[in-house]
Amino acid sequence: MDSEHIVKSFDEELERLDSTIAEMGGLAEAQLADALDALTRRDSELAHRVSERDARIDALERDVDDMTMKMLALRQPMAEDLRTVLAALKTASDLERVGDYARNMANRTLVLSQTRHIPEGSHTIHRMAILVQGMIKNVLDSYIGRDAVLANDVRVRDQEVDQLHNSLFRELLTYMMEDPRNITTCTHLLFIAKNIERIGDHVTNIAEHIHMMVHGEAPDSDRPKSDRTSFTVVKSPTSGGEGVTS
Amino acid sequence: MDSEHIVKSFDEELERLDSTIAEMGGLAEAQLADALDALTRRDSELAHRVSERDARIDALERDVDDMTMKMLALRQPMAEDLRTVLAALKTASDLERVGDYARNMANRTLVLSQTRHIPEGSHTIHRMAILVQGMIKNVLDSYIGRDAVLANDVRVRDQEVDQLHNSLFRELLTYMMEDPRNITTCTHLLFIAKNIERIGDHVTNIAEHIHMMVHGEAPDSDRPKSDRTSFTVVKSPTSGGEGVTS
Repeated sequence: MDSEHIVKSFDEELERLDSTIAEMGGLAEAQLADALDALTRRDSELAHRVSERDARIDALERDVDDMTMKMLALRQPMAEDLRTVLAALKTASDLERVGDYARNMANRTLVLSQTRHIPEGSHTIHRMAILVQGMIKNVLDSYIGRDAVLANDVRVRDQEVDQLHNSLFRELLTYMMEDPRNITTCTHLLFIAKNIERIGDHVTNIAEHIHMMVHGEAPDSDRPKSDRTSFTVVKSPTSGGEGVTS
Repeated sequence: MDSEHIVKSFDEELERLDSTIAEMGGLAEAQLADALDALTRRDSELAHRVSERDARIDALERDVDDMTMKMLALRQPMAEDLRTVLAALKTASDLERVGDYARNMANRTLVLSQTRHIPEGSHTIHRMAILVQGMIKNVLDSYIGRDAVLANDVRVRDQEVDQLHNSLFRELLTYMMEDPRNITTCTHLLFIAKNIERIGDHVTNIAEHIHMMVHGEAPDSDRPKSDRTSFTVVKSPTSGGEGVTS
């Protein structure tokens, strides 16, 4: 009777862990959506709200930390239960970072409302962000459903994000070279694009935690990686060359 | 007799965990030093070596993951032992990221060997990197010595890194505005500076894990944060204003 009680209560704790991760994920998803909306409409008020709301995600990460610590100390879970607790711990850390990147996007949006608008640059950012939003949604579904196949699908899609990031990187460098008045705006757009690319990486991490939780081992293949922006050279027209290498 | 044997062996496992963290940290420190050296001397060969050697740090992170998972499953540690195992797990994840940022610096150095040299920009980067190298060294010492006071000192020093990053951000934007031929170089320098600033953040995370490991709770005050680059506006001279706001 006693042992049954303990078992039932551990399941309840696991459920609470899942629901906290789901809440964190939902918030992170909403933060990215609002950060994107604020950027698109240069809405400083919304950007401020995004920036302030990040504290809620940080608090939930501390809750997950406390819960997992207590579960490990008092329940001493084994096998799948242990993997579930560790996956929650790591996933919370990644979701906290997603929230940080959304807040950073919002902070940069506050600057962009004071600088020249470059609509073309925002379009590709918009596409990247929409892709990543879909990835967050699906990775949360696969977390709650313990669906490693869907998680792997999310992991593969991160390559598309990297490819958009590559083309955006060159595009923004070109705008800067065309007109120095674009430099401040484009620099912040470059970092916003990088933020979104990094969110994609953290979602990919979560997909890998799910694989580990379900199968007890890391995914087979190395992570597909297509971000080439570190290697990008765009020559200024005034330097005489039109050459673009990567 | 049997129980004594088990206890002794758990201590050995904890020692092995410590020595793996020390090895990872030493490698991460060396990777940053070499990435900086490659950048300063535009040494592509060294940059290639840094880029390739990152795989070793990744492998050590997987070792720590495996070790901690086994220790949690088979030893079911409590109290301080549990905190030590969790601190190792989190610290390994932060050190892996430090390695990634050093590799990214090296990748960008490969590009910079093909672009205009801007010596002034490299000086501040050099100062930032030296500061962060000192922080890594001290945080590793405080990890191994379980020295929460030294860890807190490291945490406070991250503000200096943020302040250097702020001034560098404006400086690089100014070089871009002065001459569009500087744009590609400065953009990569901006991201290299950001990498170093992020390494500082991860070192700060480690300092917080140490505090938690030693005292069983998170550090009191919120993390000191002085990175203002997300809010920086530098007006182009050709736009009529000289104003710089932040």
